[in-house]
Amino acid sequence: MNLPNKVEIIEVGPRDGIQNESTFISTENKIELINALNKTGIKRMEATSFVHPKYVPQMKDAKEVLEGIDRDPSIQYMALIPNEKGCDRAIESGIKALSLVVGASDSFNLKNVKMTREQSIQSFETVIKKAKEQDIFIRYNIATSFWCPFEGKVDSDLVLDLVEKAENLGVDEIVLCDTIGRANPAQVFDLFEKVMSLQTTAMITAHFHDTYGMALSNVVAALQTGVTRFDASIGGLGGCPFAPGAAGNSSTEDIVFMLHEMGIETGIDLKQLLACVEMVKPLTNRNLTGHLHKV
Amino acid sequence: MNLPNKVEIIEVGPRDGIQNESTFISTENKIELINALNKTGIKRMEATSFVHPKYVPQMKDAKEVLEGIDRDPSIQYMALIPNEKGCDRAIESGIKALSLVVGASDSFNLKNVKMTREQSIQSFETVIKKAKEQDIFIRYNIATSFWCPFEGKVDSDLVLDLVEKAENLGVDEIVLCDTIGRANPAQVFDLFEKVMSLQTTAMITAHFHDTYGMALSNVVAALQTGVTRFDASIGGLGGCPFAPGAAGNSSTEDIVFMLHEMGIETGIDLKQLLACVEMVKPLTNRNLTGHLHKV
Repeated sequence: MNLPNKVEIIEVGPRDGIQNESTFISTENKIELINALNKTGIKRMEATSFVHPKYVPQMKDAKEVLEGIDRDPSIQYMALIPNEKGCDRAIESGIKALSLVVGASDSFNLKNVKMTREQSIQSFETVIKKAKEQDIFIRYNIATSFWCPFEGKVDSDLVLDLVEKAENLGVDEIVLCDTIGRANPAQVFDLFEKVMSLQTTAMITAHFHDTYGMALSNVVAALQTGVTRFDASIGGLGGCPFAPGAAGNSSTEDIVFMLHEMGIETGIDLKQLLACVEMVKPLTNRNLTGHLHKV
Repeated sequence: MNLPNKVEIIEVGPRDGIQNESTFISTENKIELINALNKTGIKRMEATSFVHPKYVPQMKDAKEVLEGIDRDPSIQYMALIPNEKGCDRAIESGIKALSLVVGASDSFNLKNVKMTREQSIQSFETVIKKAKEQDIFIRYNIATSFWCPFEGKVDSDLVLDLVEKAENLGVDEIVLCDTIGRANPAQVFDLFEKVMSLQTTAMITAHFHDTYGMALSNVVAALQTGVTRFDASIGGLGGCPFAPGAAGNSSTEDIVFMLHEMGIETGIDLKQLLACVEMVKPLTNRNLTGHLHKV
C-alpha cells in the first residue's frame, strides 16, 4: 500500500462540528474546548464562523470566542466567512486565515447561501483579492464534491473546474468535502487521483462525514492518491442540515487512532484528544459517533 | 483502484452475531431471522454452532433451529463445531458445511477452548478427515489473525503457518478473523497480500469487527489484494467476550451498501436486508452498530 509517513489533521469541530447544535453552547465552553484542543498537537483549526446570526445562531459569538481563546502562535486559527462583510469582521478579530465555501452543485449552493454556484465564485473573487493583499491565508472548501442532497451524484468535472478556478485565484488550500457523507472509497480514489494529477500550488485537503460509516475507508482511499491533509471533528460532531439522518464529521480521534495504528505520524496526542471528547460530550444532545471513546 | 466486479458476503449473524447476547433469543425468533435472511440473496450463512450449552447457552437449540428453518437448496448453511462430538451432532442435523476455529495466538486459543494452538490443530485433523469422507465442506477460521486481546499484535508468520497447515489438510475455506477489531488497513493489506500470494486451493475470506470503526476500511484494503469474500453480521451484531468494549462484527448492510456504491455486485437485496435489521433490533439489548439503518 502506497502510504505517506506523515499526515496533517485539521480540526473543524469548533466550527463545522458545533454549528448545527440546536442548544446554544456558551462562549465560555467554546473557548475551553479550543484551549483544550490547543494542547493536543493540532496545528490548524477552524475556530468559528462570521455568518449572520439569523442563519447560524450558534456562531453569533464568533468575535468573543476569538478574543477569549489562548492564541498559540504555532497554531493556525481559521474562520469561515460567507461574504465580504464576514471577511471584514474576521480580519478585525485578528484572524489570519479565512475559510470560504462554494458548493460544486448549484442546487446545494442556492439552498446554502441563496446564490448560484457562479455567483458565489464571483463574489469570492473580491474577497480573495482583498484578503491576499493583507497576506491572509485562504482555504477554499468545495462542498458537495461527491454527492448533493438534491441532485445526487456530482459530476467530477464540476469539481475539477472549481479546483482550477480556485487555483487560478491563488487560494492556499482547496478542500474537497463530502458534505452528506455518501462518497465511497472508489469515488474518492478516482476524484482525488484526478485532482492530485493537476499538481496545484494550493494544498489539497479531504473532508469526510461518517453518515454511512465510510469516512475512514475514504481516508484510506485518499491517502493512496497522495492526499496528506484531512479535516476531522472532535467526537465526530457535526452534520449537514440538508442531509436527513446524516451523522457527523469523521471523528478526529478515530482518524488519528487509525493513522497511528498504520504507522503514520500526526503529531497529535491521543490522550489529550480523548480529554477533548469528554469535554464535548455534555455540550451535545446527540450520541457521539466516534468509536475510540467507547473502547 | 484495483477492485473486483463481484463479492460474496457470508452472513454470520445467526451464529457469531448472537452467540454472546446475554438474553436468550427464542428458537422461533432465530428461525424467523434465518428464514428472512434466506430472502435477501445471501448464499452462505453460519446458522448456528454445536458447542457445549454450558459455554454458549445461546446456541443450546442448534438442532431445533436447523430442523425449523426453511432450507433453501441454493444456500449453504454452516454450523460451527468445537470438536469431534460437535461434528457428529452437526452431521446428524443434516449439516453439509462445518466451521472450525483455531486461534493464531496461543493465549487466545487457551482461553477460548482450553487447548494450545497446536492441540487445536491436531484435534481438528481427525474431524477434517472424517468430514471430508462424507463430502462435508470445511471452513477453517483463524481467530486473532491480527491482534490478540492478551498478546497484542500477532506475528503474520503465525498466521501464514496456519494457512499452510489448513491448506495441507484440504480445507475448503480459510477465514482470517480480526477477532477484537483492531486490525488497521495497512496491516490487513500486508497480511492478505502475503496470503493471496500463496495461491491456496482453499477460498480465502476476511472477517472484521468494527470496534474502532475500521471494518469498512479493512474491507477496502482486503479487496485491493484480491480478496472477494467477506463475513458480515446483520445489524453489526456480535463482539468478542475477551475484548472489553468491543463493538460488533462489521454489519452486513453497511458492507453491502458500500460495495454497491462502489459498483461491486453482491447479489443481495438491500431492502430485504434492512427488513432483517428491523427484525434483529428487538432481539438485542445493545444499540446496533450499523450505520445504514439510521439514515
